Amino acid sequence: MALTKEENETLTRVGPGTPAGEMLRRYWQPIGFANELRDKPRRKRILGEDVVMFRDEKDRVGVLALRCMHRGTSLEFGHIENGGLRCCYHGWLYDVEGKVLETPSEPPTSTFKERVRQPSYKVQELGGALFVYMGPEPAPLLPRYDVLARQDGKRALRARIINCNYRTATTPTWDEGEINPQVFELGVLNTYTRRAADGNRWAHVNYFVMPTMNKTGNVEEGHPTEHRASSSCEVMRWRVPMDDTSTIHYTVEFGAIVNGKMMGTIMTDRSAEGVQETTFGVYRWDDSIGWFGREDQDRAAQESQGAIFDRTTEHLGYTDRGVILLRRLYKESIEAVKQGRDPLGVIRDPEKNKLIRLIPHEDLLD
Amino acid sequence: MALTKEENETLTRVGPGTPAGEMLRRYWQPIGFANELRDKPRRKRILGEDVVMFRDEKDRVGVLALRCMHRGTSLEFGHIENGGLRCCYHGWLYDVEGKVLETPSEPPTSTFKERVRQPSYKVQELGGALFVYMGPEPAPLLPRYDVLARQDGKRALRARIINCNYRTATTPTWDEGEINPQVFELGVLNTYTRRAADGNRWAHVNYFVMPTMNKTGNVEEGHPTEHRASSSCEVMRWRVPMDDTSTIHYTVEFGAIVNGKMMGTIMTDRSAEGVQETTFGVYRWDDSIGWFGREDQDRAAQESQGAIFDRTTEHLGYTDRGVILLRRLYKESIEAVKQGRDPLGVIRDPEKNKLIRLIPHEDLLD
Amino acid sequence: MALTKEENETLTRVGPGTPAGEMLRRYWQPIGFANELRDKPRRKRILGEDVVMFRDEKDRVGVLALRCMHRGTSLEFGHIENGGLRCCYHGWLYDVEGKVLETPSEPPTSTFKERVRQPSYKVQELGGALFVYMGPEPAPLLPRYDVLARQDGKRALRARIINCNYRTATTPTWDEGEINPQVFELGVLNTYTRRAADGNRWAHVNYFVMPTMNKTGNVEEGHPTEHRASSSCEVMRWRVPMDDTSTIHYTVEFGAIVNGKMMGTIMTDRSAEGVQETTFGVYRWDDSIGWFGREDQDRAAQESQGAIFDRTTEHLGYTDRGVILLRRLYKESIEAVKQGRDPLGVIRDPEKNKLIRLIPHEDLLD
Repeated sequence: MALTKEENETLTRVGPGTPAGEMLRRYWQPIGFANELRDKPRRKRILGEDVVMFRDEKDRVGVLALRCMHRGTSLEFGHIENGGLRCCYHGWLYDVEGKVLETPSEPPTSTFKERVRQPSYKVQELGGALFVYMGPEPAPLLPRYDVLARQDGKRALRARIINCNYRTATTPTWDEGEINPQVFELGVLNTYTRRAADGNRWAHVNYFVMPTMNKTGNVEEGHPTEHRASSSCEVMRWRVPMDDTSTIHYTVEFGAIVNGKMMGTIMTDRSAEGVQETTFGVYRWDDSIGWFGREDQDRAAQESQGAIFDRTTEHLGYTDRGVILLRRLYKESIEAVKQGRDPLGVIRDPEKNKLIRLIPHEDLLD
Repeated sequence: MALTKEENETLTRVGPGTPAGEMLRRYWQPIGFANELRDKPRRKRILGEDVVMFRDEKDRVGVLALRCMHRGTSLEFGHIENGGLRCCYHGWLYDVEGKVLETPSEPPTSTFKERVRQPSYKVQELGGALFVYMGPEPAPLLPRYDVLARQDGKRALRARIINCNYRTATTPTWDEGEINPQVFELGVLNTYTRRAADGNRWAHVNYFVMPTMNKTGNVEEGHPTEHRASSSCEVMRWRVPMDDTSTIHYTVEFGAIVNGKMMGTIMTDRSAEGVQETTFGVYRWDDSIGWFGREDQDRAAQESQGAIFDRTTEHLGYTDRGVILLRRLYKESIEAVKQGRDPLGVIRDPEKNKLIRLIPHEDLLD
Repeated sequence: MALTKEENETLTRVGPGTPAGEMLRRYWQPIGFANELRDKPRRKRILGEDVVMFRDEKDRVGVLALRCMHRGTSLEFGHIENGGLRCCYHGWLYDVEGKVLETPSEPPTSTFKERVRQPSYKVQELGGALFVYMGPEPAPLLPRYDVLARQDGKRALRARIINCNYRTATTPTWDEGEINPQVFELGVLNTYTRRAADGNRWAHVNYFVMPTMNKTGNVEEGHPTEHRASSSCEVMRWRVPMDDTSTIHYTVEFGAIVNGKMMGTIMTDRSAEGVQETTFGVYRWDDSIGWFGREDQDRAAQESQGAIFDRTTEHLGYTDRGVILLRRLYKESIEAVKQGRDPLGVIRDPEKNKLIRLIPHEDLLD
């Protein structure tokens, strides 16, 4: 069941032109938060590409290739002014779509700036997060997952770096004792119900959403909310490759307000800080549990596999059949893209995108 | 006399399957100290391989491949419990020989854990040091060198990193003005006697022991001990490759007690600290001598040759004939291994391994 | 107009045997300052080669290959004594030209030291700077540029590292709005005159001197000096590759004394410190201008292009024709060297080297 070296390569490489990279480029990917964009541009790395993200004076957000197309200086040092982002070197000015607005000291009659364009990507905001689309046109819809699109509560957003390949950072979402995975139109669904000691019925659900997201949770019958993660409210997580050996883990928590009251607690929002840096191999020790702090436990288990783990040496058991299923979906999605089709979970029908509700509704349960 | 590029490659590479790596794997190599193993496993790097070393609840020591054979998480973060080392990720439990004791959440009827095994290496303790054998079976005997096996005195152990190839870190043991090298069954022996100004006769000896050890010292005629290094007691040193560009220098000092009295001083034992890290290019300055401190002088001379020195450019003179001899022994030992024979210095006869006494006994002297 | 990948490679690589490296080796290159040489040797890196520079007891300066030809230890740790530099390892002693003066412990009859030689380079001092020649004999003359050779004023010298390829660190010397470039015997000359608001006539000049130098400045008609940079006195700058991805930027300022009075201010001399280290991506912020401090503005614009910028993606406009001209000169100079001729700007006629005066003299102006 272990991967061959070639399969491992295929699944782990994310740069332009790689099989998995092309597949991942068919989805809108989180690239940051609305709150982190203030008066300066922000440098970002995503799918092996360096880009700069900025908000212009009219509140439009742009994502451009990092290096100025003129002579290569980084636009992270550019100035936001005059309707765009101005390179600090020779002053070329770009709008949010990469259109060249000014090329100072070129002759007034020059048509040069009409003939060239700074590479750019489409970007949209939803629920405080910014999503970028790096694939071919026509772009699909930005999925309106419930934690992003609901308006009846509060939201908190965070992001931090996991210093290893995105595959290693994604697979633990499958580490469940009892699994009954079913492929559905967005990914894989695993559900079950159980009776607690007090006789009450609990509904559990584990959604894996292509390409790298998951949402897990449960709800007690009769509880006023429809879904909550065990320790908090509704939580969805994205793992976005920075490059082959670094991943950003985005978390969005949503707490519903029912009759004016929050149904649970949510984490502190840290979106204004942008992505939190972490150090490979350095984990916070928590004396109260005699182990790494909760936030670093998964990171230690993932990063210690190495930058890109060679999965020719692993041994998968019965409880790893979710991992095996996920690999199959990835391979099928890569193949779909090669054949010009959409991979699993890409949404183009507005009817299906009003609100994507990921909860343990009755028809899914046994 | 300079090496060709190919010879240099052959002698310096230590990973699995390399000629020198295979030769070095025919010897027991020090991997750490008994004192450094307490309640947590210790990560180690040796001959280009990452391993984890731990002591179980029954005081048995194990050396396993670093990454869990299940899904690749590092066992350096494992818990010592239930007769083995448990991976922090999905809880697989291994004993000191790599046997899988538990695979939590696999179905009770599964025979999976009988069919797989975590790679492991044999390990033995002698004189407070731990030695690992990474070659093919049958393993030879762990040599009982005097400084390790004697019981009539005190011992001190230390280890520190030299940030360069093991060959560069090994050759200075030959930098002697007067040398008269003789190949013997463990390596090379160099001896001479001299009369001091007071008329007393001194016996000097320099043992190079395959593959990377040496013991030097002298003794004045009539002195109650048989051997001592110039500044202390008996000292033996090992240089063990971590990988192609890092080496651990192990030092074991032994001071005999004669009539209840230590015959000299020995260094402070630091075995509980494990290997001491050093920083490439950073050396302690000693104002009292206007030069690097004694402990860093060799390291500066070695590391400044670069990670792997290109010996096609060196120029060996008459005083370097020990270096040339050592290269010949290495080449012969590599060739022996290729032909399925033991390299020089491997011991399989228990009669010869009762106590390997490396001293200037009379029959060696002129 | 963008470069092909091959052209970019050809222009950016500086090691021995590379086309641009061979071309650059036909010029004397600054390697440091006379003031930084005191009682210890200094390690230097230039054109991809590691060397050691030292001043012997007779005040002669030597530049030798860094690693001792005997067994490879770095001579940066050597001792200056007995007429040369002695390796700290086995004590071989070299004079400033690499001649082996002593090989301790070799037999007294050995002729070994007459038959070998430590590689060395010619070095000369001018104006407080040290220049090295790394090309084939016969070496050309060390050019006596005015800021180095004049005796009628004060001089200040500095050097700092730019963490990118020398090409990226050199081209900004061409970023001028109004340019009228003319190839002359040392490089490219750009001049113009203008009338200021007060009616006075200003003469401007921009010299690019092969291979990586420039001198810019202007003078108001009737001013007692012949030339000054806008903010100070006469300034010349050199960009010398350490290797393919690091460059040292040397600055020499000269302030003439006319009738006992300095005609302007010059920077503080920091030649005793040697080369100032800088950190890639770290730039001093200056709150008073809301931007990077003046000394770091160019470095930010240059380094952020990356270690070696891929110029296949740039877009050069009308104002970049100086950049295009410079590329042509480089290609022609590389071709000249291939054909055994001197590249542009190499000086062999002593008549032309009495004093190379780079000022806006009347016959150059329009």
